[in-house]
Parts: sequence; C-alpha cells; structure tokens
Amino acid sequence: MKDHEPISPKKPNHKFDRRALQVSDAQALATSYADCGQEELIRLQDSDGRVLASDVVAPHPFPAFARSGMDGYAVSSADLAPCDQGEKVWLEVVDHIPCGYVSSVPIVQGKASRIMTGAQVPEGADAVVMLEATELRVEDGVTYVGFKRSIEKGKNITPLGFELQEGDMILRRGTRIGPGEISVLATFGIHKVGVYRQPVVGIFSTGTELLDITEPLEPGKIRNSNTYMLASQIREAGGVPVIMEAIPDHIELARQKVEEALRDYDIVVTTGGVSVGDYDIMGELVTSGGLDMLFNKVTMRPGSVTTAAVKEGKLLFALSGNPGACFVGFLLFVRPAIRKMLGMEQLYLTEWTAELGSDYAKVNNFTRFVRGSLQVVNGKLVATPATLDESSVMITIKDSDCLIVIPPELRGAVKGQAVQVLVLPGVWS
Amino acid sequence: MKDHEPISPKKPNHKFDRRALQVSDAQALATSYADCGQEELIRLQDSDGRVLASDVVAPHPFPAFARSGMDGYAVSSADLAPCDQGEKVWLEVVDHIPCGYVSSVPIVQGKASRIMTGAQVPEGADAVVMLEATELRVEDGVTYVGFKRSIEKGKNITPLGFELQEGDMILRRGTRIGPGEISVLATFGIHKVGVYRQPVVGIFSTGTELLDITEPLEPGKIRNSNTYMLASQIREAGGVPVIMEAIPDHIELARQKVEEALRDYDIVVTTGGVSVGDYDIMGELVTSGGLDMLFNKVTMRPGSVTTAAVKEGKLLFALSGNPGACFVGFLLFVRPAIRKMLGMEQLYLTEWTAELGSDYAKVNNFTRFVRGSLQVVNGKLVATPATLDESSVMITIKDSDCLIVIPPELRGAVKGQAVQVLVLPGVWS
Repeated sequence: MKDHEPISPKKPNHKFDRRALQVSDAQALATSYADCGQEELIRLQDSDGRVLASDVVAPHPFPAFARSGMDGYAVSSADLAPCDQGEKVWLEVVDHIPCGYVSSVPIVQGKASRIMTGAQVPEGADAVVMLEATELRVEDGVTYVGFKRSIEKGKNITPLGFELQEGDMILRRGTRIGPGEISVLATFGIHKVGVYRQPVVGIFSTGTELLDITEPLEPGKIRNSNTYMLASQIREAGGVPVIMEAIPDHIELARQKVEEALRDYDIVVTTGGVSVGDYDIMGELVTSGGLDMLFNKVTMRPGSVTTAAVKEGKLLFALSGNPGACFVGFLLFVRPAIRKMLGMEQLYLTEWTAELGSDYAKVNNFTRFVRGSLQVVNGKLVATPATLDESSVMITIKDSDCLIVIPPELRGAVKGQAVQVLVLPGVWS
Repeated sequence: MKDHEPISPKKPNHKFDRRALQVSDAQALATSYADCGQEELIRLQDSDGRVLASDVVAPHPFPAFARSGMDGYAVSSADLAPCDQGEKVWLEVVDHIPCGYVSSVPIVQGKASRIMTGAQVPEGADAVVMLEATELRVEDGVTYVGFKRSIEKGKNITPLGFELQEGDMILRRGTRIGPGEISVLATFGIHKVGVYRQPVVGIFSTGTELLDITEPLEPGKIRNSNTYMLASQIREAGGVPVIMEAIPDHIELARQKVEEALRDYDIVVTTGGVSVGDYDIMGELVTSGGLDMLFNKVTMRPGSVTTAAVKEGKLLFALSGNPGACFVGFLLFVRPAIRKMLGMEQLYLTEWTAELGSDYAKVNNFTRFVRGSLQVVNGKLVATPATLDESSVMITIKDSDCLIVIPPELRGAVKGQAVQVLVLPGVWS
C-alpha cells in the first residue's frame, strides 16, 4: 500500500452533501466575478482575435469623396441627352484622372475627362460612362470621346458618405477583431487599436497518477492530457495559458501553490481532485478556508463536481479530471469568464435548435451535455450524439462540434425530435 | 494632369476580350499548382491550428489498464450475490488503491480493496461498488466494508482498450489540430508533432492612390485597407503573411518585385491593378511574359477580374482592388491554395443549403457571391443578404458570415427559396 494517510472511518464526510446549483445560476455567479482587463494599445496588424475596448466612430465620411465606379469618362449627363434622339455626341477630353489624383479641370459643357475606377469625380461631372461604351477620335492634336447612348445622372458614381457618414458608429466595444474589422479600422487610419489585455490563466493538474507527456507509460498511470487540452481551449477563448507544475498532494503545500498562482495570474484552472475520493485535494482546498467557494456541485453531466471559488476577486475553477467533463466544464464556466475579461458581449456558446440525428437513451436527474456532431441536411440542422460519451472518454472530444442538451425531464430522446445544441468554437472553419 | 504616359487611342485593347473560366474550374486549376509544404516537428503545445503531416496510430490500447470509474470498493461480484437474498455482506479491506498505484494484493473471496476513480482495478476484482453505497466497520484493527446490494460483473470498470486498441487509426494526416486532437496526442505521449510548414504569403498592393494606414487622409486618396484585411485572412487560413511595399507603377520594376517575391515566398497575392483601366499593371504583368497566366477572368461577381498565374511552380494571385471583391477572391482562390499547402483535405468553404431571408433582385450573367448573415430559426438555416453588397463596399464585410450563391440562371431570388451558402471561417466562435 502506498504511503498515504489511512482512511478514517469516523471522519464525517461532507463531500456527499454538496448543494447543487443549476448550470445557468452557476455560470452567472462565476462570471459575475470576472471583470474586463486593462486596456492596451496594439498595432492593427497584431489585433487578430483581440477585442475592442471602445466604440469606434467614423472620423470622416466614407467614401471621403464622390468616387468613380468604372474606368471610363466623367461627363455631365445633360451633354449626352441628344443620344436619345439617335445623335452621336462627341466631347473634348480635357483631363485624365488616375486614382489618387484630384483634377483641377471642371467638366463644363462639351467636355469630358478620362477617369479610372476609384478616382475622385471632377467638379461638374455627374455620371461616368464606361470605357467599353465609348470611342476615341483625334483631330488636330485634340482628343474627342464619342457616345451613342445617354446616361442617367449619378450613374457609376459612388457618392461621398455612401457607406458611412462622419460620426457613424462603426464598431462596438466588445467586438472581436477579424478580417472585416481590420478592413474598416485600416480604412479610417486606426493603426493602433485599443483592446483589452488578454487574461493570463494558470493551469494546474492534480494527481500522482499523471505522467508528463514526455515520459514513457508506466503501469496504472496515465499521461497528463487535460493540461494541454485546457491550454488549447484557453487560447481559443482568447486567454494566455501558463502551464504550472502539478499540485502537490499535501493540502497546505497545495493551498500555497494555488494562492500564489491566484496572485500571479488572472484566473486559475485545475483539473482533477474534485470528486468524493480520498485524495480529492481541490474539493478540500475550496472548503477549508482562505478561499470563498462559489459552488462545488452543478446539476449537469458530465462535470457535476465542477467547482469554483474566488480569492480577492480572482477566480479559481476546479474542473473534473475526467477528460470529457474537463472539456465541458471549461466551455460552460471558464470560457465565459475569459470572454468577459476580454470585454466580449456574447459570453456563452451559441445555442441553436436542431433535430436529433439518433436516439439517445441515457437520462438522469441532471441536465446532460452530450458531445455530438452537427450537419446541415436540406437546410435543417441535425445533431447526432457521439457513440462514446462517457465523462471519462477522451477520444470523441476531437470529433465533436456541438454539445447536445438533454434536459433531466426528458425520458430518453428519440431521433427526429427537437433538441437544443451548444455550438463548439471553431466549427466549420 | 498627372505626369503619366498619355493614352494612345490606337493601342489595341486585349483587356476586353478575356476568356472567362467557371469558378470551380478556376479553383481546381489554381489549387492544382499548390503542393504540401515540408514536414516539420514542433512541440505539442505549439501545435494549435497546425495540420498533421502523417496519420497517427495508437501506440498502445487506451485505457492501458482496466480502470475504476468510481470512488469505491473493488470486489469480486460473486461475493455480493447473497445480498439478493436480503443478506448484508461484509468484506475485509485489504488494500487502498489511489490513482497511479498498482495493487499487489489480489482480490480473493471475502476481500475487497478501497479504490479511487481512475485507478487500476486489482487482479481478481470484476466490479467496483460506489463509496456512497457502502459502510465501514473496524474490528480488532481490521477494517470491513459492508454492502446491501449485489452488483453485476464489470460494473463501474472501464476495460482495457475500451476507447482504442493498439494500432487503431486515431488521427488522419491533414487534420487541423484543436483541443480534442491535443488531448489525444498528449494521451499517447506524442509531445512532438509532425506538421506541414505554414506557407508564407507575400502581399502587395498596387495603386498610387493608396495612403499608408499611418498617414492622414488626402483629397482623392484612400488608405490601404486590403493589405491588412488580406494579412488577417491569410492568418485565419493558416498561412504567414508578409506585407510588402506597394508595387511600383512601372511595368519592369513591378515585374522585378513580383518575381523576387515569388522566389522568396510560397504564394504572392496582390490587390488592385487587374481591371481594364490604364494603370492596371497586374493585368499587364501576367500577360506580358515571364509568368504563365492561368486565368484573368472568372464568371463571378464580385471579382470577375480575379487573375492567377504561376512561375516555377509558385502561385501568384492578382485580386481586385475593390474590398468586397478582394475579400471574396481570397476566400475562393487563395485560401484553398494555402489549405492545400498545409495538407488539409477540405480546401473549400463549407457549403450548405439555406432559406433566403429576404428578396435579392440583382441578377447577372455571372454567379454572384452575396455577403450575408446566417441565423438558425427553429432548426432551419436562414441566410439574409447584406443591404450593401456592391463590390466596392467595405463596411458590410465585417457583418457577414456567409456568401449566398446566386446562380446566373436565377431571375431574381425571393425570400423563402432555397439557396446555397458558403460559410465564412470563424462563424460562431
């Protein structure tokens, strides 16, 4: 027998009478302790995936000038009216306007200017005729352009402010930055962007059974996979993971390590040590002083033992050591906290209604979050449960793109019925 | 007038008679020139978003041992059979098995061992009774555990190899690595991962009208937003963007710059200079020798002028300078090439059928890719076109999460009809 403290049969066991919170109550409670990080100014080209710390308002109209939508000739539409009577109209070409160039020659009667797509339309012109509808003639060194058809006023010109007026709200605080946002910010010369600092999340594993991923397998032991999975999930959520050494098996040493991490990092996440076993050190840690426990039981499967606590405003999440439960616990509780610290508005996973793709028999008095895959069949969303969905199962995590919500009141769910699904991050990308 | 070469009315204009390819033909042609990059070995914790260069096969069964699924007592189920006759059974506790520990005490008749969730089940035991269903008694220094109910064989034990047998295929070459993949790789001790090198993509803008994003606005000019948008799109696709200086307006200098970039980088992307205007230097470059043009017209809107060429096996994509067309051109042509170089199997955007959320009137003899937003309404997918979807419009790119495909034969599309949509990367994450 390993050198452990013997079990005392007399020791009262509070572990069995945990008060369970509903998932949404537990989520709301935990995220209420998460606050936006400090604002920092970063280069636009480094801002992918970051979250805007303030609203962005258009500093000028866009386009900032009346813009030609075609390569062709800027004309006064009135000059081409005779085309309607079958006449051909010839106008003298007085300027040649490439993009970025402002013509100083106004368009007056009988005149036209060659203009490129994107160039500023000259004064006096109110339409642009496309190049393909014109012909050229040179006479005594003067170039003339000929038209067979009239044109309506405003044609092929994008007016000043067509997309945005000065002062229009263009991007809201809390928006995650992607290609479209970068395009807008660049357009307005916002080359430094105010974003919220990314929360730094310390990750601890617990358990003497864990081997490092670089170690060879030993009998009875498993490799520490949850830590690396969590690091990946933290990065997706927008946080910065820091992998710590495993939590020691000694309660006072463990407390010291966890409290140190809570001082150094914005959030601390642990995996393992929260069930009702003898070495469930995290369960003991959150109830034995020093930390304010928020909850240590949630009415959900997997991950009913998911635990959260705070110390001086910093959140500690103690997730199950079962891979499936750890994965789900992160998505339901830790990810929303990270997103709130990033200033995002949508904290929780996107929820859809879908059709169940196959029967699901396991029912429980707790809400079940079943790993599943999503398909769109003839415009309808179909969610199919994974064949292995036990809390302890690791292999189906990679194949899942949603969590199918099976409420406790459901006495088995049948193929074809409507279910709620939570969409996992990164689906279809 | 700016100091430019004057237009010669006599110069024949080949720009108007480009031969247009169908979108799927153009896609297949361009990606046929993209090859997987070299394999490189990186740390597991750096592998998020990278793509596996080889299949991964389970090096050992998983779990590697019969594992307890509960905190409780490992027993021989036969010992508890008398419970069915209402008898209470007491067994002597002979060992205490935490996780990671292999018990050397076999379970023989009348004996049981305390065991934790995740620990290796001792020899002779064939079931685990949960802690909450037991009671303890100590007599003359010997601990006994009491049971009121029998248990079926195998209960609460996950057998060796339950998830995977040795040699099972676990991850295929071409899989993009996320939290679930990292979990599997860590479980099997694969701490260095073979992935394909990320293609490095050089980006050029063209056009004297472009201001840098750090410059104040000037009359007739616009800021260079496409370059930064493309860099963001390249990162999402899995490539590494390198932003170059703008392409000079002089054909021979431009050729030199582009060919230099094609030697240094894996792909080169340019924006602007491909329409029928006078300074459309990219259009000229790909048709004037030195490069093999693949296409310079595609039957699509926006972006019909999208152009591709190769030189010594390297791809050059010349995208439209219109923001909307540049965005779509990247997604349809450049992203698949990057994904092919990364070794991914699914090169193109995910395609779904959806219900059109509002009428769309613009029809054309080319297929139209209309920016739109996706919703799931009662399990049905609804795609609604953006209000401003002109090629030149920048502002609605950020609000789009799909491209609605309007085929040329459609004489206007009406609300409620079925349409194909291409899902944009990063939706719902």
